[in-house]
Amino acid sequence: MSEALRQLGQNLLLPGVKGLPLQQATRQDAIGGLGLHVLDGTLSYPVAVLRESTLAHNIAWMRDFVERAGALLAPHGKTTMSPQLFQAQLDAGAWAITLATIPQLRIAHRFGVRRVLLANQPVAIADIESLAALLRDDPGFEAWVLVDSSAGARRLADVMRRLAPQRRLPVLVELGAEGGRTGVRGLDAARVLAREVAASPALRLAGIEGYEGLWVGADRDSDLARVRGLLAEMVELTRRCDDEGLFDGEEILISAGGSAYFDFVADAFATVGATTRPLRRVLRSGCYLTSDHGFYHGLQQEMRTRHDASFRHGLQPALEVWAAVQSRPEPGLALLTLGKRDASYDIDLPKPLCWHRPGEPAPSPMRDARIAKMNDQHAYLELPHDHPLQVGDLVATGISHPCTTFDKWQVLLTVDDGYRVTGAINTFF
Amino acid sequence: MSEALRQLGQNLLLPGVKGLPLQQATRQDAIGGLGLHVLDGTLSYPVAVLRESTLAHNIAWMRDFVERAGALLAPHGKTTMSPQLFQAQLDAGAWAITLATIPQLRIAHRFGVRRVLLANQPVAIADIESLAALLRDDPGFEAWVLVDSSAGARRLADVMRRLAPQRRLPVLVELGAEGGRTGVRGLDAARVLAREVAASPALRLAGIEGYEGLWVGADRDSDLARVRGLLAEMVELTRRCDDEGLFDGEEILISAGGSAYFDFVADAFATVGATTRPLRRVLRSGCYLTSDHGFYHGLQQEMRTRHDASFRHGLQPALEVWAAVQSRPEPGLALLTLGKRDASYDIDLPKPLCWHRPGEPAPSPMRDARIAKMNDQHAYLELPHDHPLQVGDLVATGISHPCTTFDKWQVLLTVDDGYRVTGAINTFF
Repeated sequence: MSEALRQLGQNLLLPGVKGLPLQQATRQDAIGGLGLHVLDGTLSYPVAVLRESTLAHNIAWMRDFVERAGALLAPHGKTTMSPQLFQAQLDAGAWAITLATIPQLRIAHRFGVRRVLLANQPVAIADIESLAALLRDDPGFEAWVLVDSSAGARRLADVMRRLAPQRRLPVLVELGAEGGRTGVRGLDAARVLAREVAASPALRLAGIEGYEGLWVGADRDSDLARVRGLLAEMVELTRRCDDEGLFDGEEILISAGGSAYFDFVADAFATVGATTRPLRRVLRSGCYLTSDHGFYHGLQQEMRTRHDASFRHGLQPALEVWAAVQSRPEPGLALLTLGKRDASYDIDLPKPLCWHRPGEPAPSPMRDARIAKMNDQHAYLELPHDHPLQVGDLVATGISHPCTTFDKWQVLLTVDDGYRVTGAINTFF
Repeated sequence: MSEALRQLGQNLLLPGVKGLPLQQATRQDAIGGLGLHVLDGTLSYPVAVLRESTLAHNIAWMRDFVERAGALLAPHGKTTMSPQLFQAQLDAGAWAITLATIPQLRIAHRFGVRRVLLANQPVAIADIESLAALLRDDPGFEAWVLVDSSAGARRLADVMRRLAPQRRLPVLVELGAEGGRTGVRGLDAARVLAREVAASPALRLAGIEGYEGLWVGADRDSDLARVRGLLAEMVELTRRCDDEGLFDGEEILISAGGSAYFDFVADAFATVGATTRPLRRVLRSGCYLTSDHGFYHGLQQEMRTRHDASFRHGLQPALEVWAAVQSRPEPGLALLTLGKRDASYDIDLPKPLCWHRPGEPAPSPMRDARIAKMNDQHAYLELPHDHPLQVGDLVATGISHPCTTFDKWQVLLTVDDGYRVTGAINTFF
């Protein structure tokens, strides 16, 4: 564990940290000893909590999955941007942490991550300089980046030549698809770019990358066909680049995998066949860590129908946001202390899971209720007119899309299965 | 200026702060002296920038507006959660800072705000305790809170009696409207609650509050009728409570005003007439400070049509997010380094304003282009097939809804009219 990570525990949390009922500066590593409990109503609400046992389950399940698949895991760190969670993933055998931007990479580096897959082509000169300076000054730090254009490759090479001439930057050519996001369109153009990278003294062609998680729409057959099509093209591109002797370094990387289709990714990557140097199959799911009660829950259900019993007890939702009932102004309406500042709203609004009156033995399921709207700091909970929910009661919500909930919390609390607060983790967005 | 606020300038910013190209720890108050410039391409992108002259214009314009209206300004601090911007607002005569939650109030208090209007009914016991402890321990600190239910009032009174028996908490009864958000429904129920507050030894009825900014839909006539209706009821409730002798303290507060209809609020509040003690008309707009290029821009245009020349040069957009072009994978598509982590997407997606190639004399307007979609870290910019935009170029975007852009940045940069970086401000979400 890095010194910076250790020091997070010694940080003083001040009154004003969302969710925590602090009235004075409190060491972060003392939070678990304060006797705080989500259900007793003595926190500040909203509060974002991570269920420790579920996190551990998801981490172990994904470790087993990638092991069975003969793959490596470089979980996408942009989901949580939490050094403590990065460390937990690395401790469970993650090969690297994936990140989206150079500021994110700098944060991971600060907290002791030694191997990063940057799943983007960095373009800002200051960003590339920042990366090159790190590689120059910290010879043990490893980073792979993507390129999807000649212009991008030249920008990387120019800065590397200037700032870190002793290191060749390992680069993965990103293969895209028509109508998709970044990535070279088509095998031919991708091979042209791969040759350019291979010919650059400042760069080294280290592998092939793609992102298949874009296609999650209403037409599932069409989506899956596109996913499979991109993966097949990645496999083909890998073979051709290897046949042409374009790869350099000790191994070849092939990497894809959001959290929607990592099973397809593993299946496709198993078909690459013999390569001239060892092939590392790198999956990059970020949302597996917490899963959710919405978007990824649905995709997990789909994945289960495609697989055997090993998927039955697959990824479970580990992240919840608890709110208090602030107002019951009309029979069918409760306003919760939960808003766009606190929970995802980009795919679905939060889903009420259960409600609880502090002092009563246990939460009750929240039936026939839904959050119909959120403002910055309020959620509109529609519920049956005769529902007993009253001001001061608590409502647990599940979220849809972990990435856009994590980024709303600089501190999240960890809880045990009884919702006792066991500690706190940090995020750096 | 508080010591905590002064110390923000001495904070060390570490590599990894979004937008800043730092390779080493740098004092925040040195940022303006680094010679950084948005247009030269040497920042990290995306970067959120505040145009200083526009901020100053908006602050001065709103100060003049509330002065002409005989009102006071308690700008909603939840918009920015920035101590430096709070201070700028207070320096320009703001009477208080409005906040939405107790954690926000604690942060404002930490940075020297001495008068807070909490535009919500706090319900979590730990939150009320935190407020009561502040009022007990800091006799010069003033806070007003809302109530909209008897249950809410009792929770406040119980904690105040226990923790701060020497102070009566000043409370505003929140008047709501059927189909609205929080707030008592109807004048009769509101008067019953006002009497209950007035009778409580721990509370004091200090005024009447409402929020008229909810109604911004397609049917403008209906919206405006509802806005005017609520404001008229607030005026009537204020008169009746005063007639009944329910208010206590040196003055009576009447407060409303998001950023959509503050002109109607001022007009309505001018009609209260004589009261038994001085009436303070408190407007709470938060978004006036930066305005925007979307939602509030449209509402400003509407407001201009309702008014004379003093509104012609009204609020202007002060907040922009600049991104770099990461990829040009198809003729009509550019991917920008800008995503849900960086800019608002709850009302509209960011709007491309202009583009710039570092090294060229000046930015060019961005015509016939739009951001069609955003992922967590990418924006899909659709543009004419023959557009010269290339990898590494910069694109400035205007946002819609400042609240949901500020909360994505812990540090924003201030710039002069030529986009030279003059400094940095902090947010605390």
